[in-house]
Amino acid sequence: MIRILGIDPGSQRTGLGVIDVGNDGRCRYVHAGVLKLLDAEDFPARLGLLCEGLEAALDEWQPQQVAIETVFMDKSATSALKLGHARGAALATVVRRRLPVSEYAPRVIKQSLVGRGAADKQQVQHMVRLLLNLGDAKLQADAGDALAIALTHAHMSATAGRTGIAVNQLRRRSSR
Amino acid sequence: MIRILGIDPGSQRTGLGVIDVGNDGRCRYVHAGVLKLLDAEDFPARLGLLCEGLEAALDEWQPQQVAIETVFMDKSATSALKLGHARGAALATVVRRRLPVSEYAPRVIKQSLVGRGAADKQQVQHMVRLLLNLGDAKLQADAGDALAIALTHAHMSATAGRTGIAVNQLRRRSSR
Repeated sequence: MIRILGIDPGSQRTGLGVIDVGNDGRCRYVHAGVLKLLDAEDFPARLGLLCEGLEAALDEWQPQQVAIETVFMDKSATSALKLGHARGAALATVVRRRLPVSEYAPRVIKQSLVGRGAADKQQVQHMVRLLLNLGDAKLQADAGDALAIALTHAHMSATAGRTGIAVNQLRRRSSR
Repeated sequence: MIRILGIDPGSQRTGLGVIDVGNDGRCRYVHAGVLKLLDAEDFPARLGLLCEGLEAALDEWQPQQVAIETVFMDKSATSALKLGHARGAALATVVRRRLPVSEYAPRVIKQSLVGRGAADKQQVQHMVRLLLNLGDAKLQADAGDALAIALTHAHMSATAGRTGIAVNQLRRRSSR
């Protein structure tokens, strides 16, 4: 069994989703939540809250692998920059724990879950509910996105027919 | 006496400069160095190296205040994004230690040291040498920039005629 943490980084809200992947490849819901960062005194303090919340989640859920969304560069330069700060803080926190990180573009996540790179956000959330048997349980959008990222990592590892870590290293090389 | 750490963040090299400001307002050189991040396996690993190096410097030099350059948005969106990652990782590391952080735009740093917001990099490096009595001592460009940021923070605190911390909080509010 492998435990995967998916991170949907943002400087206002950061989604976290944890799933377990059994040896048969089946995915099971473990946890999902959102770190709310807007209450912080200023922007640097938000990054501090992000790291604290992420470290608490790493301590509590002990994932073996981490997956994170790449930045969608169609955003304005200013919002890309803010997102870059949040992603940088999150990545640094994960890497310092020596955990392997895989990065997936939004269209890869949509393709993996819905079968179409241009799927809309609601379809992705719908598939997350379906794949993890969540029924009507309450799920915040950012938490759902984080679960989608974790599920994508599980699928990509299975598709490649290798251990998650080998795929992960492959992906890290290709994202240089 | 107040000890200030200046950070010139970058995803390839991050400059660190430490100065002491006496009660008479005089600045004294303490340390300058560059964290070289290009040897890391991939981009996330670079951010990990940045945080490790920064934490080691915080442990060794025990600064009471930290100053960092804001991002120069004339750069391409891609390089702004990479720089955002490095800055985010650095800011999060500092904030987690509950250290006050001040942010200064490049033109403010140039204005503060050379008296002209459009001064070139060599003039800034020259003034850093002069102000800190460095003579012909070897000084890498990124380390010199980090010292320039620390000196700017010292000057701004003195100009405002308040304690550094009060100025710092002022600056943090204005940078929202």
